[in-house]
Amino acid sequence: MDALDLIVAKRDGGEHDAASLEWLMRGVVDGSVPDYQLAAWLMAVVWHGMTARETADLTRAMAASGRQLDLTRLPHPTVDKHSTGGVGDKTTLVVGPLAAATGLTVAKMSGRGLGHTGGTLDKLESIPGLSVTLPVERFMRQAAAVGLVIAGQTAELAPADRRLYALRDVTGTVQSLPLIAASVMSKKLAAGAEAIALDVKVGSGAFMATEAEARALAALMVDIGRHAGRRVAAALTMMDQPLGRAIGNALEVREAIHTLRGEGPADLHALCMAMAGLMHVAGGNAAQPEHVSEELLEALTSGRAAERLQRMVEAQGGDPRVVDAPERVLPAAPVVRPVEQAKDGWVAAVDARAIGAVAVDLGAGRRRKEDAVDPAVGIVLHAKVGDRVDGHTHLADVHARTEEAARLAVDRVRAAFVVAEAVPVVPPLILGYLT
Amino acid sequence: MDALDLIVAKRDGGEHDAASLEWLMRGVVDGSVPDYQLAAWLMAVVWHGMTARETADLTRAMAASGRQLDLTRLPHPTVDKHSTGGVGDKTTLVVGPLAAATGLTVAKMSGRGLGHTGGTLDKLESIPGLSVTLPVERFMRQAAAVGLVIAGQTAELAPADRRLYALRDVTGTVQSLPLIAASVMSKKLAAGAEAIALDVKVGSGAFMATEAEARALAALMVDIGRHAGRRVAAALTMMDQPLGRAIGNALEVREAIHTLRGEGPADLHALCMAMAGLMHVAGGNAAQPEHVSEELLEALTSGRAAERLQRMVEAQGGDPRVVDAPERVLPAAPVVRPVEQAKDGWVAAVDARAIGAVAVDLGAGRRRKEDAVDPAVGIVLHAKVGDRVDGHTHLADVHARTEEAARLAVDRVRAAFVVAEAVPVVPPLILGYLT
Repeated sequence: MDALDLIVAKRDGGEHDAASLEWLMRGVVDGSVPDYQLAAWLMAVVWHGMTARETADLTRAMAASGRQLDLTRLPHPTVDKHSTGGVGDKTTLVVGPLAAATGLTVAKMSGRGLGHTGGTLDKLESIPGLSVTLPVERFMRQAAAVGLVIAGQTAELAPADRRLYALRDVTGTVQSLPLIAASVMSKKLAAGAEAIALDVKVGSGAFMATEAEARALAALMVDIGRHAGRRVAAALTMMDQPLGRAIGNALEVREAIHTLRGEGPADLHALCMAMAGLMHVAGGNAAQPEHVSEELLEALTSGRAAERLQRMVEAQGGDPRVVDAPERVLPAAPVVRPVEQAKDGWVAAVDARAIGAVAVDLGAGRRRKEDAVDPAVGIVLHAKVGDRVDGHTHLADVHARTEEAARLAVDRVRAAFVVAEAVPVVPPLILGYLT
Repeated sequence: MDALDLIVAKRDGGEHDAASLEWLMRGVVDGSVPDYQLAAWLMAVVWHGMTARETADLTRAMAASGRQLDLTRLPHPTVDKHSTGGVGDKTTLVVGPLAAATGLTVAKMSGRGLGHTGGTLDKLESIPGLSVTLPVERFMRQAAAVGLVIAGQTAELAPADRRLYALRDVTGTVQSLPLIAASVMSKKLAAGAEAIALDVKVGSGAFMATEAEARALAALMVDIGRHAGRRVAAALTMMDQPLGRAIGNALEVREAIHTLRGEGPADLHALCMAMAGLMHVAGGNAAQPEHVSEELLEALTSGRAAERLQRMVEAQGGDPRVVDAPERVLPAAPVVRPVEQAKDGWVAAVDARAIGAVAVDLGAGRRRKEDAVDPAVGIVLHAKVGDRVDGHTHLADVHARTEEAARLAVDRVRAAFVVAEAVPVVPPLILGYLT
């Protein structure tokens, strides 16, 4: 086999067989296929796409390119959860403990933030002492003992995806549904959970701008999972404004803890209930997410869900007091400045992408992979879409490292709000399920 | 500016402006744009193509990526000639002296053979002593004194093309009309001639398999030339069977010399008359190639054309006796074996690509750039399409280095002939002109 043959076949609209894709992914991992040939092949894939069968074979070949975790000895069902990424999306911090407290085993590998969206690992690391770098043996032991572990993805998992993703990022080949689906699902397959719940986000703050695109991506990922013998369920959810009120690592952990006690913002609470429900659907415990609502609510109000997070934090070396007194344990920014405005009206929009960008510039996220993040900084929204505001309303607070950073951020956060004179139509948070 | 922006623009079907293409070609030459980004961009160009304006700007940017020769002080008009490549195509060796002997200045940089087609430089180097590696000053001096010089392309000319071509070769991005046209014309523009005659070949032995493709390529190259202020004329010519009878370096030089005396094979003679005529058209001396036929024939029969080759050979250090006695001066292969056949009928086809491949395997050409060529070996056809053959006809002679090589080649040459029972239709050699 020859990389040039595969490039030419895809350039001419051909379909690769499983053996060709396995060969190519081995070449990706052992370095025998050079970057320039992969780049040409990737652009040909963006051009001609891939069939569902081809995408499933590519995903399996990527999953098989490295270590594949065996979770079969953990208590069943093992359920993973993935979000395509959004602004203020701390769902995993709530849904993980909630699912574990209601009988699922959640042994999850997460990513770091890049671009305008945050990453679960960065959020967890704002808890003093907590480590997300766990050897596989310790990861498995904690999953068995606590029912919940969230760690950084080991470099051994789906190494083909790592090289392809880095290359796609610099060759304009990110925007391809088969490549996006294969990237997400190869890591999920290699991570070993028997069931997977996907949160596919739509809107200006998400990677998929339209519902049609998001629906196609969700359907493709569900299909890949089925081809690989996993149960996959997906939710399509809106990401036009930030999720919840907090954006920034420690601020989001605090909000997640409030939500775990049943005291979170309405949209975050609703999404966490939906996603935890969907994990039970994928895990085979329920036909619809709503069927487990009562049980999930009980876990929140009884404190069992929060207690499960506490056990996880402790097992990963973090300060467990964070769950009872997040304000005392989490780092706080030295400068907090309100975002004021003078108009009377209703909030018609809060631009999630713009807010995400301000958070990155405050230091909460990364422009490049090697950047460090500041755990304390971020934004807390006091008004969301549909809220009535007047000339005295603080729209948000900016939590910054310096006065100068705060000043710049306050103006940009204000500009991200649209205040209108009429009551806006608030779109539904959850657009639908693919189960 | 950023390479990723250009990749994304082309991926999305956009059009690059001249400044973007100039920036990109500078990045190609100084190495600041990595291979993988160029490969993705090249595939996006194969996908979406380029407008005529874009292609002209790309070509000029490639020409401007290195040294550009100034031929304006040479006797006018300076006329270059280019063939898109075929099997047995020794036209330059005839047309160059013929054009020079009839008043044109031919200061030409040529290429080496690669794949199934030969290269003018390899053919010239079969003349003992002759050098094609000339410093630019000597190249210019000879052009002024002799009116004719054929040398290897200096590495300083259109260096962007060299890197792009090498990359296209391994990324499945060779087959793109704008990229092919820009590659050819960038070298022609940088080589400085004010007028250019193009021989665009069509057929199974050429890079363009269909007349429509060849016509589109020719039109694009004529257009690029005009955008750059050069006069360009093109001929579309057939390349289904080898041109002339000789294939192989010294064998082709000998045939070229015969043709320069008016004693060449009919097809080669006709093509050389046409291309030399077209050089006069491009140079502004004639409205149609046929208008200078009488003058060209006189140069052949008087010996003036052959004498011009002799002066060139001498100026470049070669043995000038080659022109009067090629058989005594040129290297000869130790083994010559006839290709026999037993059928009665007419030659319906001689597969140029197959014959070219046999010649390469005999040692006359290169599989890889770094291969050396054997000047003596090759094939001489004794029958061409339309010829009557019987059981006693030798179809060809194989000139080989060893008996074993000859034996293998004889069978393959025989298989390249189709002998039919009916008189075949012989297609015209020259399909048309774009002037």
